[in-house]
Amino acid sequence: MTISDFTLYELQKATRNHGMPLEGLAYDVTPIGMHYVLVHYDVPYVSATTWRLQIDGRVARSLVLSLDDIRSRPRATKRVTMECAGNGRARLTPRPRSQPWLEEAVSTGEWTGIPLASLLQEAGIHDDAVEVVFTGLDRGEQQGHQQLYQRALPVEEALRPDVLLAFELNGIALPPQHGFPLRLIVPGWYGMTNVKWLSRITVLDKPFWGYQQNVFYRIAAHEDDPGIQLSRMYPRSLMIPPGIPAFETRERLVPPGTITLRGRAWSGWAPISRVEVSADSGATWAEAELGAPSGIETWRTWSFRWTATEGRHELLSRATDAAGNVQPLEPVWNVHGVANNAVQRVIVAVRPDIEG
Amino acid sequence: MTISDFTLYELQKATRNHGMPLEGLAYDVTPIGMHYVLVHYDVPYVSATTWRLQIDGRVARSLVLSLDDIRSRPRATKRVTMECAGNGRARLTPRPRSQPWLEEAVSTGEWTGIPLASLLQEAGIHDDAVEVVFTGLDRGEQQGHQQLYQRALPVEEALRPDVLLAFELNGIALPPQHGFPLRLIVPGWYGMTNVKWLSRITVLDKPFWGYQQNVFYRIAAHEDDPGIQLSRMYPRSLMIPPGIPAFETRERLVPPGTITLRGRAWSGWAPISRVEVSADSGATWAEAELGAPSGIETWRTWSFRWTATEGRHELLSRATDAAGNVQPLEPVWNVHGVANNAVQRVIVAVRPDIEG
Repeated sequence: MTISDFTLYELQKATRNHGMPLEGLAYDVTPIGMHYVLVHYDVPYVSATTWRLQIDGRVARSLVLSLDDIRSRPRATKRVTMECAGNGRARLTPRPRSQPWLEEAVSTGEWTGIPLASLLQEAGIHDDAVEVVFTGLDRGEQQGHQQLYQRALPVEEALRPDVLLAFELNGIALPPQHGFPLRLIVPGWYGMTNVKWLSRITVLDKPFWGYQQNVFYRIAAHEDDPGIQLSRMYPRSLMIPPGIPAFETRERLVPPGTITLRGRAWSGWAPISRVEVSADSGATWAEAELGAPSGIETWRTWSFRWTATEGRHELLSRATDAAGNVQPLEPVWNVHGVANNAVQRVIVAVRPDIEG
Repeated sequence: MTISDFTLYELQKATRNHGMPLEGLAYDVTPIGMHYVLVHYDVPYVSATTWRLQIDGRVARSLVLSLDDIRSRPRATKRVTMECAGNGRARLTPRPRSQPWLEEAVSTGEWTGIPLASLLQEAGIHDDAVEVVFTGLDRGEQQGHQQLYQRALPVEEALRPDVLLAFELNGIALPPQHGFPLRLIVPGWYGMTNVKWLSRITVLDKPFWGYQQNVFYRIAAHEDDPGIQLSRMYPRSLMIPPGIPAFETRERLVPPGTITLRGRAWSGWAPISRVEVSADSGATWAEAELGAPSGIETWRTWSFRWTATEGRHELLSRATDAAGNVQPLEPVWNVHGVANNAVQRVIVAVRPDIEG
């Protein structure tokens, strides 16, 4: 517990954005309003009647669609686990100054919309298409760049049948902070991909260059390092907080005895194949029992029987996916503080005076 | 911008609780999921089928009610502006260590439920009743006190016809983080009054003593000062953030020219009677135009035409209520950091290169 000295600039983001309280891991689908929110600039005020989606660039027919146009097409619903690329940033030293997530920036939503591929096919995407750019209505200035929020996908990802343009979350119209009226949903990719307040989709015959694509959301050792552009989520496991909290520290208080620890794990690269638990700060590990298999789209449950003995314990869980990706024990630093999937450490005080 | 050095303990609260992004001031009713959330301990996992509400103490007939029992009674819907008592805490020096709100912990919800008075009358409240205690299902330890969250109301407040036991927010079942399945709603009072995950209502023939009543939620100069127990919200005005944000500082960027500043003001003591705006850090003030009158239950809109000239400006707005309460220009310190309703200061950089 040595990290501290958060700045006002970090706090201004932390009080308006929010993670999922980790009690939310108890739900297969995160309840409405509990889904994590990261708004890059402001939540724009969008009128459903005047809003239009424009599809242009390397297509045979540009399209301009109203929300009713979009809602009248064949729809699909997908359950998708989404994590912010900055999750874990606040655990890095020195700490990159942005939204200071600990490990709570993940949730699972049930998104309803239309397949992106169907619209691109309707527009007649040209054979020379390379990337597809998504422009949102949120606007601001970052490192001196005045911009609308924009991100791109390689054309083969954009044409995946599971990629949606979503207008509902958990069965109700998208709330403003989740991208009303329309949001891109790309299962398996970090949250920054899922452009909110979508207003334009542009097909390019060359790679896109953009601030949020080439500058911010990459794993880089320093500002001039081109690094790796972020895409899919690296594996992570989180635990439902056992027992009750101490208000001041949020450490967990548990009575002695055997309890079942439960959690969820996910990876955008391959299905989760293994979760291990350590109840002694990582000295020894044992296999957790895994719930029903899930793909890369949603988190997988796990459980572990633990005999809690009086005293303080540090509980860890570590996820491995079928591609062999495994969570590191310690954070790996990078200049923007992204993709830190180091294992979570849960401090538990086991005390006989705690009521079960 | 001198406040800093936030601790991990504060950040752990700030990343799970959340304010309303101030763009949310644009809506009469805060959209679902954008309403501020302050969870004192954990969000309990409650089963709607096994949950019961118990009403006991100084009543003729104790009642035990299921959610269906409650939902089958005559219902009422109320629009209520609610603010956390800790709003503004992070602006105090030295800073009390708790949820570090800046000024975003306020929202307006449309709550549907049954009048509390009707249930108390059905139970047959005794003439010697003095206070009514509300017990929630969230449990934790604070300053060494292991407890369920509890708050009390004087019996005359509990019998007000506008006090609700709410089971819906904005027309849908209460989300877990807002108190599913049932929450007390007391218009005009600070958020800590509106007990979530309500499980028991107990009528007492003497004043209640409780940690959240007598220790935490009071305006006190030091820990041993009995101070003033919090009840109603003191007046405050907030501004919809003009222009676009700078990502790093969240300062506002605006092109030169005349713009309309807009905001909302509220008070739990009396209707808002006046809002003044200063565009020069408080040196001079002018009257804002007020929207339709509102009572103590909901916020009132205001607007102000401002001619933005190139350079940096500090914009202030100050609310006064019909009881003569007015916002202070500087925070007034107290040991738990509650009820800090000092005026908001919005930094705006007016630059010709900003697009309108």
